[in-house]
Amino acid sequence: MLSAALQSDLSAVVQGVNMMWVLTVTFLIFFMHAGFAMLEAGQVRSKNVANQLTKNLLTWSVGVIVFFLVGAAISTIVGGATGGGSYSVVGAFADLYTPEAGSPGVWVNWLFGAVFAMTAATIVSGAVAGRAKLRAYVGYTILLAAVIYPVVTGFTWGGGFLDALGFYDFAGGVIVHAMGGIAGLTAAWIIGPRVNRFNDDGSVNVIPGHSMTFAVLGTLILAFGWYGFNVGTSASPLALSESGEVVLGSFSTVGRVALVTTLGMAAGAIGAAAVATYKTGKVDTLYVANGLLAGLVGVTSVTDVIVWPGAIAIGLLAGAQLPIVFEFVEKRLKIDDVCAVFPVHGSAGVLGALAYPFAATAFWNGSASFLSLAIPQVVGVTVIAVWTFAATALVFGAFRAVGQARVSHAHELEGLDSSEHGVDTYPEFGGPDDSGARVDGGVIRSDGGVADVRPSAHRDATVSDDETEDEL
Amino acid sequence: MLSAALQSDLSAVVQGVNMMWVLTVTFLIFFMHAGFAMLEAGQVRSKNVANQLTKNLLTWSVGVIVFFLVGAAISTIVGGATGGGSYSVVGAFADLYTPEAGSPGVWVNWLFGAVFAMTAATIVSGAVAGRAKLRAYVGYTILLAAVIYPVVTGFTWGGGFLDALGFYDFAGGVIVHAMGGIAGLTAAWIIGPRVNRFNDDGSVNVIPGHSMTFAVLGTLILAFGWYGFNVGTSASPLALSESGEVVLGSFSTVGRVALVTTLGMAAGAIGAAAVATYKTGKVDTLYVANGLLAGLVGVTSVTDVIVWPGAIAIGLLAGAQLPIVFEFVEKRLKIDDVCAVFPVHGSAGVLGALAYPFAATAFWNGSASFLSLAIPQVVGVTVIAVWTFAATALVFGAFRAVGQARVSHAHELEGLDSSEHGVDTYPEFGGPDDSGARVDGGVIRSDGGVADVRPSAHRDATVSDDETEDEL
Amino acid sequence: MLSAALQSDLSAVVQGVNMMWVLTVTFLIFFMHAGFAMLEAGQVRSKNVANQLTKNLLTWSVGVIVFFLVGAAISTIVGGATGGGSYSVVGAFADLYTPEAGSPGVWVNWLFGAVFAMTAATIVSGAVAGRAKLRAYVGYTILLAAVIYPVVTGFTWGGGFLDALGFYDFAGGVIVHAMGGIAGLTAAWIIGPRVNRFNDDGSVNVIPGHSMTFAVLGTLILAFGWYGFNVGTSASPLALSESGEVVLGSFSTVGRVALVTTLGMAAGAIGAAAVATYKTGKVDTLYVANGLLAGLVGVTSVTDVIVWPGAIAIGLLAGAQLPIVFEFVEKRLKIDDVCAVFPVHGSAGVLGALAYPFAATAFWNGSASFLSLAIPQVVGVTVIAVWTFAATALVFGAFRAVGQARVSHAHELEGLDSSEHGVDTYPEFGGPDDSGARVDGGVIRSDGGVADVRPSAHRDATVSDDETEDEL
Repeated sequence: MLSAALQSDLSAVVQGVNMMWVLTVTFLIFFMHAGFAMLEAGQVRSKNVANQLTKNLLTWSVGVIVFFLVGAAISTIVGGATGGGSYSVVGAFADLYTPEAGSPGVWVNWLFGAVFAMTAATIVSGAVAGRAKLRAYVGYTILLAAVIYPVVTGFTWGGGFLDALGFYDFAGGVIVHAMGGIAGLTAAWIIGPRVNRFNDDGSVNVIPGHSMTFAVLGTLILAFGWYGFNVGTSASPLALSESGEVVLGSFSTVGRVALVTTLGMAAGAIGAAAVATYKTGKVDTLYVANGLLAGLVGVTSVTDVIVWPGAIAIGLLAGAQLPIVFEFVEKRLKIDDVCAVFPVHGSAGVLGALAYPFAATAFWNGSASFLSLAIPQVVGVTVIAVWTFAATALVFGAFRAVGQARVSHAHELEGLDSSEHGVDTYPEFGGPDDSGARVDGGVIRSDGGVADVRPSAHRDATVSDDETEDEL
Repeated sequence: MLSAALQSDLSAVVQGVNMMWVLTVTFLIFFMHAGFAMLEAGQVRSKNVANQLTKNLLTWSVGVIVFFLVGAAISTIVGGATGGGSYSVVGAFADLYTPEAGSPGVWVNWLFGAVFAMTAATIVSGAVAGRAKLRAYVGYTILLAAVIYPVVTGFTWGGGFLDALGFYDFAGGVIVHAMGGIAGLTAAWIIGPRVNRFNDDGSVNVIPGHSMTFAVLGTLILAFGWYGFNVGTSASPLALSESGEVVLGSFSTVGRVALVTTLGMAAGAIGAAAVATYKTGKVDTLYVANGLLAGLVGVTSVTDVIVWPGAIAIGLLAGAQLPIVFEFVEKRLKIDDVCAVFPVHGSAGVLGALAYPFAATAFWNGSASFLSLAIPQVVGVTVIAVWTFAATALVFGAFRAVGQARVSHAHELEGLDSSEHGVDTYPEFGGPDDSGARVDGGVIRSDGGVADVRPSAHRDATVSDDETEDEL
Repeated sequence: MLSAALQSDLSAVVQGVNMMWVLTVTFLIFFMHAGFAMLEAGQVRSKNVANQLTKNLLTWSVGVIVFFLVGAAISTIVGGATGGGSYSVVGAFADLYTPEAGSPGVWVNWLFGAVFAMTAATIVSGAVAGRAKLRAYVGYTILLAAVIYPVVTGFTWGGGFLDALGFYDFAGGVIVHAMGGIAGLTAAWIIGPRVNRFNDDGSVNVIPGHSMTFAVLGTLILAFGWYGFNVGTSASPLALSESGEVVLGSFSTVGRVALVTTLGMAAGAIGAAAVATYKTGKVDTLYVANGLLAGLVGVTSVTDVIVWPGAIAIGLLAGAQLPIVFEFVEKRLKIDDVCAVFPVHGSAGVLGALAYPFAATAFWNGSASFLSLAIPQVVGVTVIAVWTFAATALVFGAFRAVGQARVSHAHELEGLDSSEHGVDTYPEFGGPDDSGARVDGGVIRSDGGVADVRPSAHRDATVSDDETEDEL
C-alpha cells in the first residue's frame, strides 16, 4: 500500500509521460498533411497543383475548427446515445469548452482525436482533384468534420453500438482510412470524371501527375507520420493498476504494433510492385509508393492483435489488390479517382478489417473463435461504408443539383490554379497546359498531344485497348 | 516524507523525462530550417534558389557555432546585468564550456535555446532574397547570433529588465518572430529592392516565386515544427514541488498550448483567405499558406495564457492583416520584402503581444486588470523593435557604406545562383532567366517578358494600376 | 530498500519511458529514407529520378523484411560466436519470432536496429545511380540486409571480437556510414561509370543533378533524422541501478551527444564551404549541404566521448576532405560515385573513428592513453572496410559476370525511369533528355549539348582540363 503522497507522485508521472507521448505522436500525425499535400500535388497536372495544395491547407484549417466547435461534441453524443451509456452532454461541454480553465488532458486528447478526423477529411481531396469546385469541397469538409466522421467515431471509438457489438478497429483502418476512401470514391463518382478522362467508345485516357518526386516524398512523409498514427494509438506508455501501481499501459503491446506496421508497409510495397511487374514487365514507381501506403492501411485496424506472419500476408494482399482495384474502378466503374484513394485507403482498409479473424492472435492461440471475430467486422465495415456512401452522395449530390459541384468546362481546361486561385504554380517552367485537348485513348501531354503509352508500365496497365495518336 | 533514496528515484525520473521532451521538441524546432528553406526557395526566382538554400544552410551552420561560443554567454550576462541579479559569469562559463565534463542538462538547454535563436536568424534571409551579398548576410547572421538576438533574450527570458517589468512572451512571438520580421524589413529597406521591382512612376512589378509546391511544403513543415516551438515551450512535463513531490510542470497548461496553437494557425489561414478573396475574388494559395503561419506567429507569445475564443480571434486578425500589411509595405513603404517576412513574422507577432490583455485568461477570470497586462507588452514590443531596427540598420548600413551589401546589377540579373555559388539549380528545366529585364508594372516572366497579371488574384492584389505589356 | 511493489512501479516507469524514447528516435531515423530519397533524386538527371526513388522505396521494403527474417538472427549469431559468449540461438529465435506473444521490448529493439541497418543499405543506391540494374541493386540489398551488414554489427555492437578488442563506434559512423560508403564506392567501381562520364583522354565530364532544391531538402531531412540517429543512440533516458534505484541511463551523457552532433554538422558545412570557396572562389551549395552531412558522419562514431572543441575540429576536417576526396575518386580513381557517398559517408566516417583518440574525453582527462584508444579503432576500421569491400565486390562482380549488373547502353541513354519503370517523372517539363550524347569534357545539358562550365564553382572544381565545346 503506497502512501497518498507517493500515489500522487506516481499519478503525476503517468499523466506527464502519457501526455508527452500523445503530443509527440499527434505532431507526427499532423505532419501527414504535408505528406498528403505532396502525394496529391505530385499526382495532378501542373495546372491544378495550387488547387490541390489549397484544399489541403483549408481541409486542416477549416476542418479542425469545425471539429472543435461541433464535431467532437457530436461524436460524444452519438457514442453515448447509441451505446446506451449515461453520457452527460453538459459534462463534455464543460470540459472541452470552458475557456478559462481546463485540465490539460481534455484538450490534448481532443487534439489527438482531431488529427485522426482531419486525416479522413483530407483523403477525399485526392479523389476529386482537377475539377471539384473549391466551395463544394470545403462545404463537404465542414460537414465531414461536423457530422459525417463524428457519427462514425460515435458508433465505434466513442462507445456506440458497433463498439458494443465487438467491432475492432485499432487505429482507424476503417474508421479513418476506409471511411475517407469510400467518401472519395463516392464524391468522384457524383461529380464525374475530368474532361477527356474517358472516351465515348469506352476507352480510357491516362493523365499522368506532374511530379513523381513530390509524390514519393509525400509517400515517405506519410509513412513517417503513420508510425505516429499506428504506434501512437498505443496511447498510454504507463497506466495505474486498480491498486494504484504503475504498469505498462497499451505499451504492453507496442512492440507488436511497431513490428506489424513495419512489416505491413514493406509487404504492401512488394505486393503492388509484384502485381504491377507481372502485368507490364516493369516496376512502376507510383504503384510501389501507393502499395506501401495500402500495406499501411491494411494493417492499421488490427495492428496490435495480429501475428506477424499475418501482417506480411495482409500487407502483400493490400498491395497486390491496388493495381487490380484501381483498374476496376477506372475501366469498369468509370470513376476518375485521381489519386487512387479508394484502392489505397478504401479497399485496403476493408481488406484488413475482414482479414483480421484469419490473423488474430486470439484465433491462433485459441482464445477466440473465427466467427466471433469475423461477424462484428463484417457488420462494422458494412455500417460505416453505407453511412459514408449515403452521406457523401447526399452532400455532393446537393452541390451538383445546384450546379456548384464542379468548375466550368473552360475553367477545367484552363486549370483550377488559375480559375479558382489566380496563381501559376510554376511560372518559370512549362508552357500553357491544355491537357484537356481532344484525344482518344492515350496519355495526355502538357502540349495537348497524346504520348505513346507503351514505354510506361503504369500507363500500359491503365490505358484502353484502342490507344491512338491521331488528331494530334 | 519520502526517503532520500526514493527522492533520488523521483528526481531522476523528472530529469530524464523532461530532457527527453526538450530534446524531442528541439529536433522539431530544428526541422523548421527545412521549412524555411522550402518556403523561401519556393518564393524566389529559379535563378536565386540555390542562393536561398545556401543562406539557410549557413544560417544554421555559422550561427549555431557563434551562438555557442559567444551568444549564449552574452544573453546570460545581459540578463543578469539588466535584471539586477547576482549572475556569475564565471559560473555559466564553467557549466557551458568545460569540455571534459558537463551535466547533460546544461547542453540540452543550450541547444533548446539555440534552435530558437536560429529561427530568428533565418527569418531575415527571406526578406533580402535575390540581391543581398552572401558575405553581408553571413556577416549579419554572425552579429545576430553573437549579440543582437542575445541582447533581446537577455532583456526578457534571461531575467533582464523587461522580464522584471512583466513583459510576457511565452514562446517567442515577439522575441523570436517579430524580432526576425523587423530585422528582415529593416535589412530589405537598407539594401533596396530587387532590380525592376518598383518603377519610376511609382508602380509596382510582381516577381512571382518559382514553385508554389515548395512554398506550401515549407509551410507545412514549419507548422509541424511549430508544435515543437509552442507546445515544447511547455518544457517541463514533470517537476518537483518544494516538498519534493512529483507534480506536472508546465504541462499543467500544455493542453491549452496545444489547443491555442491549433486554433491560431487554422484561423490565420482562414483570415488571410477571407481578406484575399474579398479583395480579388479568388483564394490565393500563398496567402492561405502564409496566413496559417501568421496565425501561428500571432498566438506564439501568449499560447498558454489566453482563452480559446481569443486564439481564434487573434488567428483571424493575424491572417487578415497579412494581405493588408504586405500591400502597405510594398506599395507605400516601397520595401521589397520578398517572402513577406514582416507581415508574417513582424506585424503578426506584435499584434499577438498587444492583443494579449484582451484575451488573457487572467483578465477574463478577473485576476488581473487590463492595464497591468497591457503596459508591459507595449513597453516590451517597443524596446525590442527599436533595438532590432537600430542594430540591423547599423550593420547593413555599414555593409552598404563599403559597397558590400548587395551584388552588382549584372550579377543580380544573371541570378545569385550563378554569381555567388556557381551552380544552376535546375540545369534541365527552363531557359536562361533574365527576369530583371526592363518592364513596367507587370509580372516578370522567365523569358523576360511581362505577363498579364489579371488572371492572378495574388498578383492582382499587389500590382500597380498601370500594368502594361509594352516593351516586350 | 524499496518495497517490491514500489520496485515494480519504478521498473514500469523506466521501461515505459525508455520505449517511448526509442520509438520516437526510431521514427526519426526511419524518416531519413525521405532524406536520402530527396538528396539522391536531386543529384541525378531527371530521366533517372523515378529509378532512384524506387530504389529507395524498395531498399526499405525488401530490406526490412529480410532483416527481420534473417539479418537480425545472423547478427546475434555472429556476435555470440566471435565474442566467445554463451549465446543461445534458440533463445533469440523464440523472443523475436514467436508470433502470438512477445514482450514489447524485443520488437521495439529490433526495429531500432532495423532502421540503422536500412540506413547502411540505402547509402549504396546513391553511388550506383543512373546505370545499375534494378534487380542487381535489389539483389545486393537483400544480401546486405541478410548477411553483409549483420556480420559487421555482429563483430561490434553484437558483442563480437571487435567489441571485445575495444573498438568504439557510438552510433554507427563506421558500422553504418563508412560501411555504406565503402560498399557504394566498391559497387560503383565494379559496375563502371555512366556513359560519357569519363573520356578516353582521361578528362572528366560533369553530369549535374536535376534539382538542387530536392537535394538540400534531403540534406535537412537527414540532419533532422540524424538527431534521432545520434542522440537517440543514447537510448536509455532512465535506468535501474544494481540496487534497484532509478538513475539516468545513457542520458547522463546526452547533453554531450546533442552538442557534439550540432557542432559537428555545423563545422562540416563550414569546412566544405571553405575548401570549395578556396578552390573556386564561390560557395558551392551542394558542397555546403554534403559537407554538413559529412560533419555529421564524422562525429557519429564518437559523439558521446569527445570534447566539444574536438567536435568542431572533426566536423571541419570531415567537411574539408569532401571536395578533395570527391575529386580524388573522380579524377584519380575514375570511379563514378554519383552522389558522393564515399566522401560523405565513407572517408568522413573513417576520419571520425581515427580522430577519436585525439579528441576523446578519456584522453584529455588522463584516464586513457592515446594508443589504447587508437589501436582498436585502426583494427576495427580495417576489418570492416575489408569485409565490406570484399563482400560487395563479390556480389556485384557476380552480377557483372552474368551481365546483370547494369542496364544496356540504349537503356542508359533513354534513362532508367523509362527502361526500368516505364514512367516519366516530369511529363510536363523538359524535353527528351539525351544527356548521354557524345561530348568531351564539359557539362552535359538536357538538350544533349555541352555547357560552358566556367561559371560553376562545383563544376569547375570537378571538370577536366580540356573542356571543350566542339561536337555540339
